[in-house]
Amino acid sequence: MKKKFVYSFGGGKADGNESMKNLLGGKGANLAEMAGNKNLKLPVPPGFTITTEICTYYYEHKRTYPNGLKEEVTKAVKKVEELMGRKFGDPSNPLLASVRSGARRSMPGMMETVLNVGLTEKTIPGLVKQSGGNTRFVYDAYRRLIMMYSDVVMEKAQGIEPKDDESGIRKQLEHIMKAMKKERGYSSDTDLTTEDLKKLCNLFKGKIKEVLKKEFPDEANEQLWGGIGAVFASWNGKRAFSYRRIENIPDSWGTAVTVQTMVFGNMGEDSATGVAFTRNPGNGEGKFYGEYLVNAQGEDVVAGIRTPAPINKYSKSEHNKNLVTLEEGMPKLYKELFAIQKRLEKHYHDMQDIEFTIEKGRLFMLQCRIGKRNGPAAVRMAIDMLHEKVITKEEALMRVTPAQLDELLHPIIDPKVEIGTKVLAKGLPAGPGGATGQAVFSAADAVAWAKQGKKVILVREETNPEDVEGMRAAEAVLTARGGMTSHAALVARGWGKCCVVGCGTLRVDYNKKEVSAGDKIIKEGDWITLNGTKGNLYYGKLPMMDASEENKMLSEFLVLCDSVKRLGVRTNADTPDDAKRALQFGAEGIGLFRTEHMFYGKGADKPLFLLRKMIVSKTEAERKKALEELSPYVKKDIKMTLEAMDGFPVVIRLLDPPLHEFVPREEVKLKQLAQELNITLDELAERAENLHESNPMMGHRGVRLGVTYPEVSEMQIRAVFEAAAELINEGKKPYPEIMIPVVCDVKELNSQLVITEKVYKEVLAKYNLKKIKYMFGTMIEIPRASIVADKLAEVAEFFSFGTNDMTQMGFGFSRDDIGSFLPDYIKKGILPGDPFQSIDQEGIGELIKIGIDRGRKTRKNLEVGICGEHGGEPRSVEFCHFVNMDYVSCSPYRVPIAKLAAAQAVIKEKKQKTK
Amino acid sequence: MKKKFVYSFGGGKADGNESMKNLLGGKGANLAEMAGNKNLKLPVPPGFTITTEICTYYYEHKRTYPNGLKEEVTKAVKKVEELMGRKFGDPSNPLLASVRSGARRSMPGMMETVLNVGLTEKTIPGLVKQSGGNTRFVYDAYRRLIMMYSDVVMEKAQGIEPKDDESGIRKQLEHIMKAMKKERGYSSDTDLTTEDLKKLCNLFKGKIKEVLKKEFPDEANEQLWGGIGAVFASWNGKRAFSYRRIENIPDSWGTAVTVQTMVFGNMGEDSATGVAFTRNPGNGEGKFYGEYLVNAQGEDVVAGIRTPAPINKYSKSEHNKNLVTLEEGMPKLYKELFAIQKRLEKHYHDMQDIEFTIEKGRLFMLQCRIGKRNGPAAVRMAIDMLHEKVITKEEALMRVTPAQLDELLHPIIDPKVEIGTKVLAKGLPAGPGGATGQAVFSAADAVAWAKQGKKVILVREETNPEDVEGMRAAEAVLTARGGMTSHAALVARGWGKCCVVGCGTLRVDYNKKEVSAGDKIIKEGDWITLNGTKGNLYYGKLPMMDASEENKMLSEFLVLCDSVKRLGVRTNADTPDDAKRALQFGAEGIGLFRTEHMFYGKGADKPLFLLRKMIVSKTEAERKKALEELSPYVKKDIKMTLEAMDGFPVVIRLLDPPLHEFVPREEVKLKQLAQELNITLDELAERAENLHESNPMMGHRGVRLGVTYPEVSEMQIRAVFEAAAELINEGKKPYPEIMIPVVCDVKELNSQLVITEKVYKEVLAKYNLKKIKYMFGTMIEIPRASIVADKLAEVAEFFSFGTNDMTQMGFGFSRDDIGSFLPDYIKKGILPGDPFQSIDQEGIGELIKIGIDRGRKTRKNLEVGICGEHGGEPRSVEFCHFVNMDYVSCSPYRVPIAKLAAAQAVIKEKKQKTK
Repeated sequence: MKKKFVYSFGGGKADGNESMKNLLGGKGANLAEMAGNKNLKLPVPPGFTITTEICTYYYEHKRTYPNGLKEEVTKAVKKVEELMGRKFGDPSNPLLASVRSGARRSMPGMMETVLNVGLTEKTIPGLVKQSGGNTRFVYDAYRRLIMMYSDVVMEKAQGIEPKDDESGIRKQLEHIMKAMKKERGYSSDTDLTTEDLKKLCNLFKGKIKEVLKKEFPDEANEQLWGGIGAVFASWNGKRAFSYRRIENIPDSWGTAVTVQTMVFGNMGEDSATGVAFTRNPGNGEGKFYGEYLVNAQGEDVVAGIRTPAPINKYSKSEHNKNLVTLEEGMPKLYKELFAIQKRLEKHYHDMQDIEFTIEKGRLFMLQCRIGKRNGPAAVRMAIDMLHEKVITKEEALMRVTPAQLDELLHPIIDPKVEIGTKVLAKGLPAGPGGATGQAVFSAADAVAWAKQGKKVILVREETNPEDVEGMRAAEAVLTARGGMTSHAALVARGWGKCCVVGCGTLRVDYNKKEVSAGDKIIKEGDWITLNGTKGNLYYGKLPMMDASEENKMLSEFLVLCDSVKRLGVRTNADTPDDAKRALQFGAEGIGLFRTEHMFYGKGADKPLFLLRKMIVSKTEAERKKALEELSPYVKKDIKMTLEAMDGFPVVIRLLDPPLHEFVPREEVKLKQLAQELNITLDELAERAENLHESNPMMGHRGVRLGVTYPEVSEMQIRAVFEAAAELINEGKKPYPEIMIPVVCDVKELNSQLVITEKVYKEVLAKYNLKKIKYMFGTMIEIPRASIVADKLAEVAEFFSFGTNDMTQMGFGFSRDDIGSFLPDYIKKGILPGDPFQSIDQEGIGELIKIGIDRGRKTRKNLEVGICGEHGGEPRSVEFCHFVNMDYVSCSPYRVPIAKLAAAQAVIKEKKQKTK
Repeated sequence: MKKKFVYSFGGGKADGNESMKNLLGGKGANLAEMAGNKNLKLPVPPGFTITTEICTYYYEHKRTYPNGLKEEVTKAVKKVEELMGRKFGDPSNPLLASVRSGARRSMPGMMETVLNVGLTEKTIPGLVKQSGGNTRFVYDAYRRLIMMYSDVVMEKAQGIEPKDDESGIRKQLEHIMKAMKKERGYSSDTDLTTEDLKKLCNLFKGKIKEVLKKEFPDEANEQLWGGIGAVFASWNGKRAFSYRRIENIPDSWGTAVTVQTMVFGNMGEDSATGVAFTRNPGNGEGKFYGEYLVNAQGEDVVAGIRTPAPINKYSKSEHNKNLVTLEEGMPKLYKELFAIQKRLEKHYHDMQDIEFTIEKGRLFMLQCRIGKRNGPAAVRMAIDMLHEKVITKEEALMRVTPAQLDELLHPIIDPKVEIGTKVLAKGLPAGPGGATGQAVFSAADAVAWAKQGKKVILVREETNPEDVEGMRAAEAVLTARGGMTSHAALVARGWGKCCVVGCGTLRVDYNKKEVSAGDKIIKEGDWITLNGTKGNLYYGKLPMMDASEENKMLSEFLVLCDSVKRLGVRTNADTPDDAKRALQFGAEGIGLFRTEHMFYGKGADKPLFLLRKMIVSKTEAERKKALEELSPYVKKDIKMTLEAMDGFPVVIRLLDPPLHEFVPREEVKLKQLAQELNITLDELAERAENLHESNPMMGHRGVRLGVTYPEVSEMQIRAVFEAAAELINEGKKPYPEIMIPVVCDVKELNSQLVITEKVYKEVLAKYNLKKIKYMFGTMIEIPRASIVADKLAEVAEFFSFGTNDMTQMGFGFSRDDIGSFLPDYIKKGILPGDPFQSIDQEGIGELIKIGIDRGRKTRKNLEVGICGEHGGEPRSVEFCHFVNMDYVSCSPYRVPIAKLAAAQAVIKEKKQKTK
């Protein structure tokens, strides 16, 4: 059977319906639903939709249409003509149409639209008649058509590239109009008279011929097909193309084209146009909310020349509180609209974003779609609708995106202000939320200024562990270099702190204490504002708002997540504070405690000094002495965290980074160290130099340190067991899991197990205990570890996937160096995104699967988790669920997000199974 | 049935035979064979062997023996007594025995031996009688027993650790003997009179009691069991233990103990002892060859106090040509011995190493085993025996080890001289063969001195690409740092040049132009000698000899390899010279041509300068200009190599290393570059700094350069096709295979394929050709590439495994940095060896298998090879055979070795199948 190309709607009937979004696009499907569904039967201006399949055909066949399309369109036009009692191109009673795009997923503003199609010199009199003699309205409509059509159809769709911004046809026509207004001394477009508009239309046509070497097509049918072609062409326009790259929309989807009878909100004081939401999209309250303009067209609402009025009391704000509401001004129509929106929400089971037009006292619905909402609103609506029994638990969970949930956890820039502020520079959104503060350029300054009660943002080329104290003191961190897993990004995200990294256009000058962003210079003390969710830098102090008011809602929502999810959610926490914060969010243990992090931050001076002493030790004796001095600090640190997590498992990772990372850079500290070790600065420099590595990421680190310096492992393991033993004797229930990092062979694990078992017995004896509950396991972060996981599982009781390093080694991507090529890789579509952000499921994911399969083959009850930054990234969490991990672990502020993603994964799995 | 613990031999019979090496050890099995085989029935002094199973039992049961052993030994002793007509411990006609070790595989000198067991104050008169009244001989034998027994049985076997070298019992007894000789004014042991020896024995016994608090056991049976226990104990002695680690011999094998009737070559002028080979082990000639001493014991031959005499004319040398041969002195016995050795070789089908003793005119065979031989001898014997139809083709191929073949390809230090020379320092054997020359400390000096006709050895801390010219000029290279795959090692091995790297004890001082090795200082111009096969450094000029005389043999042997092997063997060659050399060795194409290597070495100044210009270009325009200038050099380079390999495939790898590697370090060159680019030195420094990477091995390199700078790929690909096109027009048959390095995703390949196909068409048109034969493929060196190999094979027509990088990424081992932990890993048995030398089959090998399986699933006829350094390492070649690669590729000098390994792999496979 021949495929149907065109789907009509209108007059209480429709060929399509809501479920046909893939074929008719979101707009077309919803128009069909509104027009044709027996529970709705809304007043929709009749029209028809040309399917997305025609778009695909169009691109596969050198921009031509299949046989039969012409005929189907003609038939569909005729249907509309019959319903409207008007005729396309008819001088006395003409039908006018809009031609709009509509893809499967909304791509707002990315494609083209042509309005008033069918208006020609010939049909003008007919429209004058329809409008009740409003000649000015008609010529204004004609003027708009010419401007839009010449731009969209005659220029852009033909692939004509204007030399510069000014030379496009639209700009040139605007210049003519501006010149006329200036000549006449008009301030607004509405000052133009009918005669002015008539003259303008003629001037426009002349200019078009001059510039584009073509006549403006003053024939209804030609205009229609021009409009249709322009919409299809705009699917591959620059804007749409790059938007699809960003949003991961396949090129093959294509757009539909909807041709619909024009209705006019600008036919006089009994006409109007508006936009409304069935609930408040800003906070989720269950009240009808919207704006409208009398005697206006949709584009006027968007253009912002006139202030729209509130549709009802509830929708009033500072700006519009004195304007007449729709409820007051057109009470009957408001009632009708109110009833419709109720019906719509009930029908769609979700908040709807609707567009309506009132033409001469008659209400038309032009569009309805699921309404966008911010995070707090999303959570509130989900919970409310669940209580209202409009939706199920599963639906409520699917209603909130992880990104929306994230919004609840951080202060944000007041969206009303942010929307109008110029973005000074863009970087990577490394730490969520917004922050404002005075720019400082060193960690020491950040600490000093903060002590004086100032709010600061630390600006650095990039950060290193010595900056940590300054990062903590700052409201936010901004760096010119580094990626999503750079030091700054990792630390900031761990703290839930706002952070923008890799802001490549910044030029930091530490000497002058300033940074240039394009031609703007930010000096020390200047106020700047960051949006860490978007990666934006603004100049000045923008107002903040707290989104976490909805904390009760959040708690309720997380309980909902817990009731559905299978994956455990632990946290990466290096301090008791982190641990407590994560517990508040419902963390079920610690998946990664990095022993080395005790050497950063507040109070770390002494242990860091001792660690450094150990590192630059030359003999085993020197090293053992330093370790002995260091040991009590390590024990204390571990004990506090085990205590904070009492009863929950705490995965403690032994020393991981290459030692060179800890060698101080400042002269003062170097001198101090040399003095303590009783060696010369030169000797110290030589020892430090010996630690230097060409590729430190693949050098002497992790278990390799434990193999070459067993005494280092022994000290740490003893600290773990003694901390646990002391807690047991204090009546607590500590549960450490000792984790060996950077393992690639079972013999490495064996060497550490021997130490562990020896120390375990010694500690039991020392504290007179029979047992300390613990596990011994390994990180899987080296590709070879996944390959030999069957062997590793003979010794390891748990695996924790370190996906950062696995991604580094698996791809051969140094995360510190990908800045030179990853942007190109993403731009050119070679990679879908940064694999350090979301697990590369095809490659690294396969390595993980191999590791899990082989590991569980040896040890059925092997505990498997993930502790890389991926553990808090929703798509990666879903992956972890599907490969049957036991838990994910992420920074405290990502715990709620991981819980949501884990719950959604269960729901998706169920859906897949029932398919 | 009860297991047999003891196997007797002698009197024309034996319980065991040659095939029982696992149970009786090599020595015991061969003695049984010699004594009992009906074709041999050789005069072997009777004795018995205690099995290796007793050794295992001994260690598994706290150093005790199983029930019944005592009885079996007693029975076996009785058998010997009956055969000999003597009795153990009998004062009038005593039986004396040797107690020796013997493992499955020879462990020369690693375990203990006790001779003259059964000699006591009580049995001395009996031995005097047997020796025809030679009292001095008897007391000398007693003195030897006491010294040996106290050392081996009473001290070492009891686990007594002397405080230092001097305080061991043996040393203390030697001091007593020395003191006596000094007191008496004797120069040699033979000056000691019977009375002296009697006195010495008493002094010895006193000292033993004083030091070890025990009496010397003057009872035959006690001595026997003491000796047996000492041999078993020596299996776990320090020397044996570490030898097993090095040679990969399992601890569980254990040693057998052979107790055998003593026969004495030192009973007078009608007695003698000797060692002989059925063929010359130094050159393989098929002539009986050996040495002997009249009136001496075996240990005297080894000790080297007297010069042994040649057994026949053929065995004469400079040192011994005037001594009486066995053939002359004892013609009847020589004839008997000659017949025996003939029988032995015929029986064993291989060259035998035999030990014999003549006691009072009677010949005894004490040992026979397969004789060790050097490389040239091994090849010659294999070929000769094949011609003699003693062995099959397969046997001939298995007779030569790859290391022996390697010896043929390089000059070596004259072994006779080397054996007595002190090793000054030990490093890694990075480039094979020997070399001698004057030490220089910079590449420039090496070039300058070599121009003056001097032979130099370049000594560096480590080398980098700027040293290459100096390395070429030098006879050999010695470095203090770096591993088997360091720059120096790779370059030297590629050239077949002698090289020792990672000589950790060296301290190089460039300012003073000297290097210290321990307390020896080597100054510029001093002669030094390297053994690159062993990793030894010697002071002075040692004589060299050329092993490659046997080149005809080599050719014949390689033809033999070719007739059996399945794997193709290509070469890694970067110059036409390399290519030609490899062709001489029978290379079947080039598996790796590194485009970047044209920028090193002679005549590279100009292209290197242009490359650098390209690298530090900031704009695409600058870069394109530099590329244009560079292009003819690249084309010329590729063309010459394609021409040299005419008809054979040449895999050309596009630019691989991170660009920063090429940035010059010398001020002069930097200035020149800045001038050419018309920028300041600071600007240049900044551009260079921008190229710097934290982990360059995982940074912007390989195809990543081709993605970000497609113009760089395009230039190279055009050079390949144009070179090929020119050759076709000159009547040649070029066959380039374009290889993309560092690939981790098929989309990277696609991006390069688009360029390739475009340029291909353009070149065809330009040269008016219809076709250029070529392939497009990829390296598999990133772990992810193996995982997604099915996808890659959709685009790639061939895979070439880059196992160096695969090992780096797979293990997370930076080859430049493993020096800090790999030695510990090997010492502690965590890794069996350096995975950069021999493929880690368990991990990296598994990744390779995954890659091959997935690749061939998509493309059945996918060509698969290896181009890492592993491609010339025998065990890795075997692996490549077993995973069904099509070819291996290695440096020219390793081509013969790879061919042999490939042939041996086929033979091993057949054996496995028939098992």
